[in-house]
Amino acid sequence: MAKGLTKRAENYSQWYNELVIKADLAETSAVRGCMVIKPYGYSIWENIQDILDKMFKQTGHQNAYFPLLIPKSFFSREANHVEGFAKECAVVTHYRLKNDKEKGGIVVDENAKLEEELIIRPTSETIIWNTYKNWIQSYRDLPILCNQWANVMRWEMRTRLFLRTSEFLWQEGHTAHETADEAIKETEKMINVYADLVENYMAIPVMKGRKSPNERFAGAIDTYCIEALMQDGKALQAGTSHFLGQNFAKAFDVKFLNKENQLEYVWATSWGVSTRLIGALIMTHSDDNGLVLPPKIAPLQVVIVPIYKNEDDLQQISAVAQHIKEDLEKLNVSVKYDDRDNYRSGWKFNEYEMKGIPVRITIGPKDLEQHQVEICRRDTLEKNFLPIDNIAENIQKLLADIQQNLFLKAQQFRDSHITKVDTWEEFEKAIEQGGFVSAHWDGTTETEEAIKEKTKATIRCIPFNNPQEEGKCIFTGNPSKERVLFARSY
Amino acid sequence: MAKGLTKRAENYSQWYNELVIKADLAETSAVRGCMVIKPYGYSIWENIQDILDKMFKQTGHQNAYFPLLIPKSFFSREANHVEGFAKECAVVTHYRLKNDKEKGGIVVDENAKLEEELIIRPTSETIIWNTYKNWIQSYRDLPILCNQWANVMRWEMRTRLFLRTSEFLWQEGHTAHETADEAIKETEKMINVYADLVENYMAIPVMKGRKSPNERFAGAIDTYCIEALMQDGKALQAGTSHFLGQNFAKAFDVKFLNKENQLEYVWATSWGVSTRLIGALIMTHSDDNGLVLPPKIAPLQVVIVPIYKNEDDLQQISAVAQHIKEDLEKLNVSVKYDDRDNYRSGWKFNEYEMKGIPVRITIGPKDLEQHQVEICRRDTLEKNFLPIDNIAENIQKLLADIQQNLFLKAQQFRDSHITKVDTWEEFEKAIEQGGFVSAHWDGTTETEEAIKEKTKATIRCIPFNNPQEEGKCIFTGNPSKERVLFARSY
Repeated sequence: MAKGLTKRAENYSQWYNELVIKADLAETSAVRGCMVIKPYGYSIWENIQDILDKMFKQTGHQNAYFPLLIPKSFFSREANHVEGFAKECAVVTHYRLKNDKEKGGIVVDENAKLEEELIIRPTSETIIWNTYKNWIQSYRDLPILCNQWANVMRWEMRTRLFLRTSEFLWQEGHTAHETADEAIKETEKMINVYADLVENYMAIPVMKGRKSPNERFAGAIDTYCIEALMQDGKALQAGTSHFLGQNFAKAFDVKFLNKENQLEYVWATSWGVSTRLIGALIMTHSDDNGLVLPPKIAPLQVVIVPIYKNEDDLQQISAVAQHIKEDLEKLNVSVKYDDRDNYRSGWKFNEYEMKGIPVRITIGPKDLEQHQVEICRRDTLEKNFLPIDNIAENIQKLLADIQQNLFLKAQQFRDSHITKVDTWEEFEKAIEQGGFVSAHWDGTTETEEAIKEKTKATIRCIPFNNPQEEGKCIFTGNPSKERVLFARSY
Repeated sequence: MAKGLTKRAENYSQWYNELVIKADLAETSAVRGCMVIKPYGYSIWENIQDILDKMFKQTGHQNAYFPLLIPKSFFSREANHVEGFAKECAVVTHYRLKNDKEKGGIVVDENAKLEEELIIRPTSETIIWNTYKNWIQSYRDLPILCNQWANVMRWEMRTRLFLRTSEFLWQEGHTAHETADEAIKETEKMINVYADLVENYMAIPVMKGRKSPNERFAGAIDTYCIEALMQDGKALQAGTSHFLGQNFAKAFDVKFLNKENQLEYVWATSWGVSTRLIGALIMTHSDDNGLVLPPKIAPLQVVIVPIYKNEDDLQQISAVAQHIKEDLEKLNVSVKYDDRDNYRSGWKFNEYEMKGIPVRITIGPKDLEQHQVEICRRDTLEKNFLPIDNIAENIQKLLADIQQNLFLKAQQFRDSHITKVDTWEEFEKAIEQGGFVSAHWDGTTETEEAIKEKTKATIRCIPFNNPQEEGKCIFTGNPSKERVLFARSY
């Protein structure tokens, strides 16, 4: 199998597309731009959900569910939201089909036309704030800390599995607060929750910071983000958290009686991550042999493959394998013993390599004689032998080691791909080479857009705790007080 | 609060509607027929999901995700499916909005019209079988045992929160098998999984059986169902599992090479339960004081309320309450200590009664003196005292007792509302009184529809292992070999 995979160096984009298919993660569907997330890909999403959902609940959030469809007029309520938000949305205009008596098949019933068109949610601020209006009267009703796990739809023209699809799965948090300060703290808290997930479970190092005004979410006062760097030198926005000020409260007239008994507009945040994270996971760690998964996010952490010539061998190996499996499961390690006899072991090796199982254990008759097993770690493809005694504890340590190694490797790659430049010439060259480019910018949207026009690079973020230093904008030469991170991005 | 609730005996339907709102479970939204599931209601759904998802995985199923939108033409492929399936569906015709330059606001961009309309899934057999076509070549690819947790949409004209909404949440399992026998076994297995959830966790007794041909799912060879009885004597279909034969495989041309190396159509099942189960839960157990929840499905099982006059009392009570809370949590009992000082204890009692918290513990200064606490169980509203020693173990036993009591009570109600009748006169009277009516039926759809026309009663199910006995159809007098269960239903 692995041999069928295009090498990253040859064609990174093709490597990615093939890998998603060959690792059995997702595929395109009969509906343009919409993907089918296959069981293996979905189980990665389930792991992300499990981890995040616990974090949300630990930070006081509750889940709820709001309608899929949003009345068209809601989008016009918040001026920046409607201006800035992409209008590529799926529009529901009718609510009934009927049999086509002439040609057979079914047709849309033209008598069942909606008075007002409904939009499949591209994001839910509008319908949620229209709902919150009824939930909030006084400061006692605040804060509201809701999250929803949902599908959303943005009619993308160029789609790629996980990275950009018309329908995708995500979570969207929507919170309501008494004060600006509390809402800003929430915005920060949630970007830190995302960084925790992405760095400590998915082993993807991120830059945390704020977006430039031009890259903010439509309707936000401030957008915080985490930005990761893929192996081809392009950045990927892995999560965002928005401080929405009172914009949506004003648009939907959501006021509360504060402690001083005065009516005031409510302060808001929203934040989300999506199945796009799976794209980031693939592109950060995987190699020319297939997927590489950090143990903490891998649906299956260990696979045991028996090598045998006859039934006798298999029986002895199976006894040992079952024992190892049980010991590993006691340590909460997920493990599969693959004794299928209709596949050769070489085929199995390729399969598990392609699917990124962190550790493979191979057991043959000679290993049993020597009371050992062969271990192959997916991250480095290194093989060595481990004694059967204490094997479970040693595998557990190995998994922790793999987790750490993947993060450090990605971090080293990222850190070695941040280039400081001070001239336009250097900037253009650095952007061409890929990675983050740290440069002075005069702070105007005009300059940002001109740079994007010329180089396809955008400001990915203005890092938190950014050192303040005097400098000159690489494009206009105008004065600047800090460097920002540019990159081409997904 | 409770005093504001209409009594069941006065107006059952109004009681239900008010209860859903007052217990903070769900509310209507700005979009006709679509509900907002509020955090408390959603947490019940999360518990249902957790339990079912574990059961699905234990029985070898995996989750996946298929597109929300389905090409219109797919629905015409399976003849019975398109004939029998309700055509009230949301239809997407356009994929872009634009600013309205004349009037302001936004309008649908008429240039962005889809070539073929897309339907928001009312159920996913068609798109899934169109996908399975590419997954299945040989018997080695079978079985496929997939489930998806998703939102679906059926444009209902008369909607009621949880019971019948245009958008609802559900899971839909779709499996593919080598043989009819294996598929039938799967269909049975899953109706048993549903019965396990509904009876052993939700404490709702069900009748298991098959649907009459007229009540089968559109495109199914056989539909199994579980039917529950609500307190107003109406039945509620709580879950269905369909044996689809080779119908969808033929419609989407899904063949496999069997072990004899011959091409054969694949055998299919599908099965689902939805947020409707929450409606069944409410209507089975709740009373005129509000929601009553079985402990195994309750988001919060125990609440502790302090009764105090001064800060000193509160401190002493809090120390004991925290201790009890910790002990209960060690036994995996979910518990909240509500020491909010801006609500009176009477208000809290009403609130927790309305929300159906199974056990309330009250602690006052006198209780502490006597080293005891007051316990109130929600199912019977009985109060008594328990010594503080071993309180956690005793509460745990009490919760098990409440769980069992709710099931037995509902079972007794159900069993006392099954009426055997042998004449049309008796039948009409029994249907009018409510409950299941066990009667002979001649087996024809014609008779079934005539009975429905006259009495609004339908055949809820033909119970599994139904005793065979000679009899005469209550409507036509034609010979019949078994009794079936009729009822009016939700």
